Order: sequence, then C-alpha cells, then structure tokens
Amino acid sequence: MPTSPSTVRVAILGATAYTSREVIRWLLAHPAVKITALCSRRDPLPTIAETFPEFVGRLDMRCEPLDPAALKDRADVALLCLPNGISMEYTPALLDAGLRVIDFSADYRLKEPADYAQWYNKNHNDLDNLAEAVYGLPELNRDKIRSARIVANPGCYPTAAALGIVPLLRAGLIETDDIIVNAASGISGAGRQPRPEHHYPERNENYEAYNVGRHRHEVEMERVLDACIRMRKSSVLFAPHLIPMERGILATIYLKPLQPISAEHAQEVFAKAYGDEPFVRLREHLPCTAHVARTNFCDLAARVAKSRIVVLSAIDNMVKGAAGQAIQNMNIMFGLEETSGLL
Amino acid sequence: MPTSPSTVRVAILGATAYTSREVIRWLLAHPAVKITALCSRRDPLPTIAETFPEFVGRLDMRCEPLDPAALKDRADVALLCLPNGISMEYTPALLDAGLRVIDFSADYRLKEPADYAQWYNKNHNDLDNLAEAVYGLPELNRDKIRSARIVANPGCYPTAAALGIVPLLRAGLIETDDIIVNAASGISGAGRQPRPEHHYPERNENYEAYNVGRHRHEVEMERVLDACIRMRKSSVLFAPHLIPMERGILATIYLKPLQPISAEHAQEVFAKAYGDEPFVRLREHLPCTAHVARTNFCDLAARVAKSRIVVLSAIDNMVKGAAGQAIQNMNIMFGLEETSGLL
Amino acid sequence: MPTSPSTVRVAILGATAYTSREVIRWLLAHPAVKITALCSRRDPLPTIAETFPEFVGRLDMRCEPLDPAALKDRADVALLCLPNGISMEYTPALLDAGLRVIDFSADYRLKEPADYAQWYNKNHNDLDNLAEAVYGLPELNRDKIRSARIVANPGCYPTAAALGIVPLLRAGLIETDDIIVNAASGISGAGRQPRPEHHYPERNENYEAYNVGRHRHEVEMERVLDACIRMRKSSVLFAPHLIPMERGILATIYLKPLQPISAEHAQEVFAKAYGDEPFVRLREHLPCTAHVARTNFCDLAARVAKSRIVVLSAIDNMVKGAAGQAIQNMNIMFGLEETSGLL
Amino acid sequence: MPTSPSTVRVAILGATAYTSREVIRWLLAHPAVKITALCSRRDPLPTIAETFPEFVGRLDMRCEPLDPAALKDRADVALLCLPNGISMEYTPALLDAGLRVIDFSADYRLKEPADYAQWYNKNHNDLDNLAEAVYGLPELNRDKIRSARIVANPGCYPTAAALGIVPLLRAGLIETDDIIVNAASGISGAGRQPRPEHHYPERNENYEAYNVGRHRHEVEMERVLDACIRMRKSSVLFAPHLIPMERGILATIYLKPLQPISAEHAQEVFAKAYGDEPFVRLREHLPCTAHVARTNFCDLAARVAKSRIVVLSAIDNMVKGAAGQAIQNMNIMFGLEETSGLL
Repeated sequence: MPTSPSTVRVAILGATAYTSREVIRWLLAHPAVKITALCSRRDPLPTIAETFPEFVGRLDMRCEPLDPAALKDRADVALLCLPNGISMEYTPALLDAGLRVIDFSADYRLKEPADYAQWYNKNHNDLDNLAEAVYGLPELNRDKIRSARIVANPGCYPTAAALGIVPLLRAGLIETDDIIVNAASGISGAGRQPRPEHHYPERNENYEAYNVGRHRHEVEMERVLDACIRMRKSSVLFAPHLIPMERGILATIYLKPLQPISAEHAQEVFAKAYGDEPFVRLREHLPCTAHVARTNFCDLAARVAKSRIVVLSAIDNMVKGAAGQAIQNMNIMFGLEETSGLL
Repeated sequence: MPTSPSTVRVAILGATAYTSREVIRWLLAHPAVKITALCSRRDPLPTIAETFPEFVGRLDMRCEPLDPAALKDRADVALLCLPNGISMEYTPALLDAGLRVIDFSADYRLKEPADYAQWYNKNHNDLDNLAEAVYGLPELNRDKIRSARIVANPGCYPTAAALGIVPLLRAGLIETDDIIVNAASGISGAGRQPRPEHHYPERNENYEAYNVGRHRHEVEMERVLDACIRMRKSSVLFAPHLIPMERGILATIYLKPLQPISAEHAQEVFAKAYGDEPFVRLREHLPCTAHVARTNFCDLAARVAKSRIVVLSAIDNMVKGAAGQAIQNMNIMFGLEETSGLL
Repeated sequence: MPTSPSTVRVAILGATAYTSREVIRWLLAHPAVKITALCSRRDPLPTIAETFPEFVGRLDMRCEPLDPAALKDRADVALLCLPNGISMEYTPALLDAGLRVIDFSADYRLKEPADYAQWYNKNHNDLDNLAEAVYGLPELNRDKIRSARIVANPGCYPTAAALGIVPLLRAGLIETDDIIVNAASGISGAGRQPRPEHHYPERNENYEAYNVGRHRHEVEMERVLDACIRMRKSSVLFAPHLIPMERGILATIYLKPLQPISAEHAQEVFAKAYGDEPFVRLREHLPCTAHVARTNFCDLAARVAKSRIVVLSAIDNMVKGAAGQAIQNMNIMFGLEETSGLL
Repeated sequence: MPTSPSTVRVAILGATAYTSREVIRWLLAHPAVKITALCSRRDPLPTIAETFPEFVGRLDMRCEPLDPAALKDRADVALLCLPNGISMEYTPALLDAGLRVIDFSADYRLKEPADYAQWYNKNHNDLDNLAEAVYGLPELNRDKIRSARIVANPGCYPTAAALGIVPLLRAGLIETDDIIVNAASGISGAGRQPRPEHHYPERNENYEAYNVGRHRHEVEMERVLDACIRMRKSSVLFAPHLIPMERGILATIYLKPLQPISAEHAQEVFAKAYGDEPFVRLREHLPCTAHVARTNFCDLAARVAKSRIVVLSAIDNMVKGAAGQAIQNMNIMFGLEETSGLL
C-alpha cells in the first residue's frame, strides 16, 4: 500500500518492549505516521496483539525478524527499542538500508568510547556512527537533531535532570561540581523482563534507593552537562529510587548557587530558557508525576532553601523519558510539526 | 539447648516461601514455641535473613537441607511450606521421625485419590497418610485436629468460602447445587516465584478473573461442603480474581435459599454457628480485607437480595488462609490456648 | 472566533468533575471538536488549569457560570458532568438555547418517573424531556442516538453489564430472572469529592463490597435489559466492589442458560452481535481492566461452568463508562466518524 | 478489676487517630500493659471498634471524654495522640493527676519557645513542662527518658534523619552546616482527616515533593543535631516527598565529610554507635521501607560517592516513627524490658 509523501514510515525494532508499546500507543494517533514494520528477535514471532492485548482490533501486525536489509524502501526511520549493546549491532545496516535511526538504548549517548566501556562493560563496536550520533534532547540540540541520521534518545533520568539543571548551568549561576540529583521512578522503567525484585509483592508498598552513585545514568548526566560548559567538568551525585507505581519520574535536584539567589530569580532563568519550548512547563506549584503522566511534558519548579537551589523536575519516564521524546525527535527530523501526535 | 516441656519445637520446611515468612513472623511472637529448624531444598542454603531481610537481627538461623531423619528429637511438628506434590514425598519420613505434620500444600486435602489425580495431574503416592489426614479447618474439625498426626492446612479460598457457606448448608437452608463463589485475592497468594503475569507493571492498576470454573480450589470447596451434608453432592462455581494489593481475600458468595429468608435470619444462623469461635467475627457492616489484614480473623456478613443470600467472607490469605490457620491448628494439636500467639 | 462548519462546538458543564477532566483529555486530541465553554457552579470560578494542572499550557480557559442562555450560538452540544438531580434543572434551558445535551448523570436514564423517585429519592421535574431522552448505549440504540436531542449517557456498571448480557438475552438463551452481576471498579468512579472512606490510607490495600443489592445501577441494568425482551421483566442481583486502583471495571456475570450451551456457542453469539462494533472486542483470553485502560473498548469473553454462562466484561469506567461513550454518542449525533478522536 | 503491680496501665488520648490505632495494635500483644482508658474529644463518643473495625472482638471499649482528672488512679501513663497545640492544654492536668506523659505531638519537642512560635504559629503555654520534657529518642536520651515525667515522642522524619546523622556528627566527621535530608513517606503520616490532596485517586500513581525547606520537621532535626554538637549550629535542608503507599519512610541523607572517608569507615562508625541498640540495624545492602514495615527497626546503610557520604535510613513512620517508639519509651520509663511487646 503506498503512503502519501507526507507520511513517515516507521519501523519499530524490539517491538515487544514496554517502550515499543508506548511508541505504538502514540503513533496510532499520530496524523502523519504509518507503522510499516514491527521487528523482534523472539522466536516464534508473535503478533503485536498477542504481546500487548490492548492492541487487539487496533493494530493487526505480526512481528518480523530483525533484518535491516528487509526494511529498505519500507521505512524512513527505525525506532530501536533494543537493549544496550544490541542497538549498535543493527544500526550500521539500518543506515545502509537508507533508514534514519532513533535509538532508545545507551549505545550512542556517550561520546567517549572509554565511558561506554567503563559503564557498560563492553567495547563499542560502531565508533564512526557514535561520533556522528546526536543526543536527542530537543531543548538542547534541536538544530542538530533536524539533520541527524542517528539520534541517541536520552535516558529517562538524564532527561529530567538535564532539563532541570542546564539553564542554571549555562547562566553560570551554580557550582558545576556540587550537583546532587535525587530521583525516583515508577517501575516501568525497569523493563518488561520479570525479576525477583520486581515481583508484585516485593515492590508493592515498598520504596528504596538503588545503585547510589553507581547508576549508568550518572555519567550520562555529567556528559550532557559537560557539553554546556567550557573548560570544566561537571560532577553529579545521582541517587535513584523506586516507587510503587507504574510510571513517572520526579528528580529533586540540589544545586549550589555561586552567589545568593532568590527562588524568583531561578524561576526567571527557567522562564527565559524555556519560554518557547512546547514540552517544558515552568510551574508555580511543585510539580508531581501525576500532572505529567501520559504526556510529553517536563514540569519544573525551583525553590531556594538553606543556600541551595532545589529544582523539582517531573516527567513521565515512558513518554518524555522515552517514547514521546523519540517521537518529538522524529517530528523534528522529518520536518513535521514538533508537537504532532503528542498533544 | 533444651526447651521447656511447654515449648513446642517447630521445624519449617520450605523456609524460603512467603508462607514460611508469615509463619516465622507470627512464631517470633508466640510465647510457647521455638523454631528449631529451617529446611530448604535450595542450593546453596541461605540464612533466613538473607532470604527475608526483615529478619536481620531477629532470627539468626541458616537453612539446612530438607532431611526428615535429621529432625528426629529436634522438633515436635513440621510445618510444610512446600509445593503441591512435594509434601507427600517428605511426610512419611517426618512421621517416622516422630514429628506431627501440618501441610500447607494441597497434598492431603482431597480424600479421593481420583480427585487429586484429576486436579493436580499426578497420582498420589502416600495413600495411607492421605486417609488419616485431617482437614485443618478448626471451626469444622477441631476435635479431630487435636489428635491428628497430619493436618492438611486448607487452601485460602476454600477457608473463606467454607466459613461463609457451611452454617447455612448444615442448617438445611440452601440449595446444595447452586453455589457461586466469586472471590478476589491479593497477589501474595501466587507465591514468591516471579512470573511475567505478576511482574509489577502488569499487575498494578489491573484487576482480572482467572481460571474461572477451573481453579483447583473449586473441588476443595466442594469436598469440604460434601462432608457437611448427607447423601448429596454440592456443586460450586468458583470464579477467582486478582486484585492489585499484597494480601487479603474477599469471597462474595451467592446462595439460593430453599425457602424465603431474611438477612437477619441468615445472620442469626451464623451467630449461632460461630458464637464461641475465637477467629470468626459476624459483622453488621460488610466485611473488607483491610479489617482482617494481618489477623487470623474471618469476617462474615450476610445480605438477602433478589431471592439470594449473599455472604461476604473476608480473610487475610496469608494468615487465616495459610500461616495463622496452621498455627491455630498447631495450638490445638499441642494443647496450647487456641489463640496463643495469634491475637 | 468562527469555527469551521465541520467543527462541533462543545460546552462542558460541571467542568471540575473527574468526568469533565476525562472529556477534556480526549477532546484536546479530537480532530473535529472545539471546546467553547467550561461551566461550573463553583465560586470563585477557577481556570481549568488551576483545577487540573495537567492542562497547564494545553487549555487556557477559565470556568464561567453555569448559565444555559449564555451558551446560545456558542455551543452545539452540552456535556453535563453534573450530579444526579442537577442535570434536570439545566437541561430544559439548554435545549431552549439550541444545544443538544449529553447528560452523564442518572437523570434521564430511567424512563419511569417512579423508578427515579424510588432510587434517587427525588421527584423528576422534567418529565417531557425524560420521555424524549435516548439511552446512549450506541451498541443498542445507535439509530435513536443519531437524532436525539437528549442522550442519557449510561452508568459505568450498566455499560459493562448490558454489553455482556444483551446478546444472550436477545438470542433467548438465558433465564431473564436469574442474573447475577458481580462487578468491581477503580476508585475514580466515586468522584472527586474527598470522603473518609476514600481517603488514601483507607482504600489502599483494601477490597470490599458495597451496596449489595441496593446500588442504583441495579435498576438501570434491569431497565436496559427489559427494553430488549418482550412481555417479561428481568431481575438482576448486582454486587459492586471497590478495588485499590484508579480506573477500570470488570463485571463477572453469572447467567443461567435455558438449554445446555457451550462456551464456543456463547462466544459465537457475541461475535455475531458485535461483529461490526468498533468498540466491543470479543477476546479469547479472559479480559482484564489493564487491556482496556484509557481506551473506549469493552472487552468480552464467555465461559461455561457448572451449568452457568460466566461472562467477563471489562471497560475503563472513565472512558467507555463515561467520557469516551459520551464522545462516541456525540460523534454519532453530529454525523462524525463514530471512532473520531477515540482511537 | 485490679491489675498486677507489674502491669502498666495506659490511657490513650486522641483515641481515634491513626497513631492511636497503631498503639492499640501493639499494646494488645504487649505482655505487661493494660489499656485502661481511651479518651476522645469526639461527640458522640464512639466505641473503638466502631472507629477501627479491626478491633471488633479484640478490644471492647468505648471512648470517654478527655478529662485528665478522671484518669487519676486509673492509669500510670498517658499516650497523647493529639494534634499539635492540643497536647499542651492537657499535659499539666495529666501530670497533676499523677500520670506520666508520652506526647506524640510536636508540643514538647522544641526547647526554644521561639522556635515553637515561629514554626507552629502559636505561643507555647506550658513553658515549665516544656523545659522539663525529654526528647524521646532512646538511642540518644535513654537515661533521661527513664526518669522523665514528660517524653516528647519524636517526629517520624526526624527519627529517621537523626539516627542516620548523629553518629557521624558526634564523631566529628562531617560538616554540620551542609546536611541535606531527602525523605519520602507513605500517606498514613498525613493522618486520618480526609483532604482533597489525599483522596485516593489523587495520591495513587503519584509522587511529589511538598514543603521543601519549609516543613516543621526541619527545625526539629536541627535542634536534635544541635544537642549533639558544641558551640555550633547545624543546618539541615529538608525535602519531604509523598509516596503512594500506606507506611514507611526512607531518608536519603547527603553529608559532606570533613576528610575523605570510605563507606567502610562510615559503616564502622554506625556499627560502634549502635552495636547494642535493639532497634537499629546496620545493613550491608541498601535499606528499604518493606524490610522495616510493621517493625520498630531503623535500618541504616552508608555509601560514599562524589565526596559525599550518602546515608540511607528506613523506618516505619507509624512504628519507630510514632507508636513503636512511644512504647519503647514507655518500656524504658517503667523499667520493663525495652523490647517488650515490640519484637
């Protein structure tokens, strides 16, 4: 079936992941997109409705093998909902087949191969494309995203953290090496694979910190911040937590101002930085995860207490933290209205 | 270390199960019991505090292999928190070693080997002890439990259902072959093994029926009821559901009265049947799971509507539906106060 | 600001209710609708973003007083998210002002004024419009809805129940006077008004029945069913329950077949009845609330056990049970694609 | 009915509060305590089982008016589960009547009347007793508690925070004026009064910060810490959050070491400080709320990252954060085993 010139043809790779489910939910209501392939490494290959019964009667497609060459001329862009380390195995062939790539994994987020090797315990094996890839945070890199062949869709925590820190950092108002990001996430962020620690009775009525100072998103935050400052390195202490709910991230960010600052001033900095941004909302009240749930918004507010700026940054980890941001990137890459299908 | 004559020595087999955890919680506060062994089939054998960190500093024991002979002279009773089909492999040797047995599995609940074979897909291989075993619902079988060597601790759903049906059945007030038990349970009832369907994000914000008309507890309910009527067979339609919470069962039971009956009359029947029962509470208001959570109570209330008696029966599936009832049985078997350690 | 002829102008009355929030969420993505007024009886009148901060930056409107005359020429349809007994006070004037009405309350659902007086403790004071109103279940009354001036948007439980019963009833396969509807709902169905029993700590980890045989939706179910059979009256025993989650209803319906029937046969009856329906899905597996959450679908499956047909019927109480169904009705009334804005 | 000399007679004032419910739960299993009066300011005065149906059949008492004189010779200790500002109205008369007082409110926690006036918007009107009151954190003030007539039972957040900070502070290892306490609590901490923001659908699937830098527990934390250091003042930035669960607090505490320190060293400091404490557990793994739920334990662990010590401190806000700590204090005050009724 031919598609109109204005329709972007999308292939989703790793179609049985939660992030894929979220992408499909949004794309089904997107006015200028057609899903033309769902690819999976599973054997046997399921229909998408078998995998996610919410799609019964809404999307009647069976997954096909994950074969980049077979997507040539069938898709304009590949959304890679694949695990870390797997995306880089398929990306070169996808580019060769003429597709542009938006990768949900961490494979193209860290510019330094040494960072990747250290934090992901694996040598990067696609260095050329790594060098070319654009970090897909539209509020920072919109212009580069427009023409990018490969967009590294940001991690969920780094999205919340970076949006809450960058304006103050760029304005030169805060210490770069005394940043604390205390964040908590719903459980969908842990993926679809059942694990003992995410068994319902273990997670229900439970709140806990994990990987304090050792989470891979810490270095991702630092590299995003580093790119916004010259001659210096940022230092972020990141403490993630798990909340008994499905979705949502709230980052509580502790920043040290270089000079005394008022909350109003801090809010103004954000207002100026994000005045025209369609998906960042500066809030008077403290943000919460419920107000951004199932939206692509990042809600922000700043407070000042005990000589610290405390920034609250809320996103839906599955939307602005994954699928929604990917679609925002896709819209930018293909000249669509940036908010298309996302409001 | 010698124990006083009045102390019951308990061995828990299958110590890493949720039911074992619940037993330990209660026994730690039981005034006349000592846990003398924790047995597990795991390799390597964990300490109980590694398995359930809530016991750090409260119970400093390492699991030992599941060897009945090794328990001789070390325990008076074995609580078997083992899967169906496994309990009957160990029970004969436990009895030989001089222990009495309270079995949480279904192995000794169904008197007819054919029932067991049909519903559990396995031939029963301990028929002598099956014949001797007593169904451990104290409200029905207190006297037999007292002297039993083997007590089959009832299933959680059958406990809630039987307590809500038996008095009306014995009083000859209801049809025996038109009983509907609609029940819902918290997720702890599914055990500790992670499974895709009990992964937190699948279970949260979800409510569903499962195994309608095919759940193994249906036949258990019928056999318990059959034992209370002469010359007839009961017929129970059982529809279980899963609720996104940890613990609690509420059975909504639809019964057909033989003659028109008032709710007051139905309540009176329960009041008479359970007047002296320490763990059954006849409620004026409709019961709910929260009011029985972490207690050994079964809360009951009856209503009449559209020519039906509707009985609501609430228990904590982990307590009156498992660990608490086992301890109640143990108290009876060893001549302790029946409520000892349970109030 | 003029709207294109193809755009339906919508006024939402009772704009601070949860149902209003849900309507707004859907309408913001509806391609052929414009919200032209939000009306409230509150004083002072809030902006919608103050009431529901998720709409910050998405809908910049302040509520206006609830004055039907002021809506003349400004709206084509009024969606009444008002309490029972209030809708009928405004409906006549809304019709006079030239608007069509879709009422979320129970005011126009029960054709017999005596039923209304008995179950809602109030005399109906708009009998002419009551006689004219159409019960807005598209699967039953699509043709009448098309031309209706007043649509009574069905109750959430009756929607789930009726869709699960009517095909078997119309096919003459079941007893009309032995119908049991056991249903459970998320807490959003109870509305936005805080009450002690819906305080978070009371509702969390709790499951309970309420209003057994006394819920107002019982008579609504019966009247819907009565309209599908001749010369007889249906009798429904309805037992609602509350589940600790936000949204979703699953009805477990127990029906007595007149002749022995197989589950396959029952499924076929549903398949024929709903073959072309855009929002009813016959499922092979048992439905659950998660698969219909935030969709306008009703998922159905039938089983046969112990001489009963057990039908499972799942909807999202806020969508097919309220806002989505209202939009479906609106689409039909205004000649839009029935699924417009709903897929 | 006379009570044995070894039995402590307890009056609970404010008996319809959640904290009262929790006290009663524990005291029902306490071997050396008798509840002799439940007092309430409600009119009419309910039975405790009407207020909390879980106590049906377990505690058959009706609340009596809150009249201190009437408690003379009937109780040895009053547990005040009363709101801030109310406790100090009754405490003098309770002392006059010969009772000792354990107060759950904030009325006797802040030694400086100016602090109280500033943070609680009210002048303190019982200054003599304020001066005499002992802050009831046994790990800090055990000896003073023993003989205290008035114990100010600590706030929930300050309990978690102080236990996680004091050993490092006393050891002189950390900056006193750069302490960040990021903490999150279950909703029971907000009390039993229904409020719009704690309506189930508002709180479910929601996580948010509140009162950042403005919560009254911030000054309480500082005063507890101040008492442990000489000549200096501590400065705490406190950011509390709400988690969608009933109970549990986890504090994630960011401390600045004066000299570089290893996590092992920090753990050792805690091990030495709490080696003999019955209710503080130093954990190797990161603590979580589930492991301390319904226990009087505080679980602690320290990590070092980015030149900060990060201490995780978990308690059950209703137990170690309220009722359990009060009973621990009572045990100390009356010469009972400190763990009596609490393990």
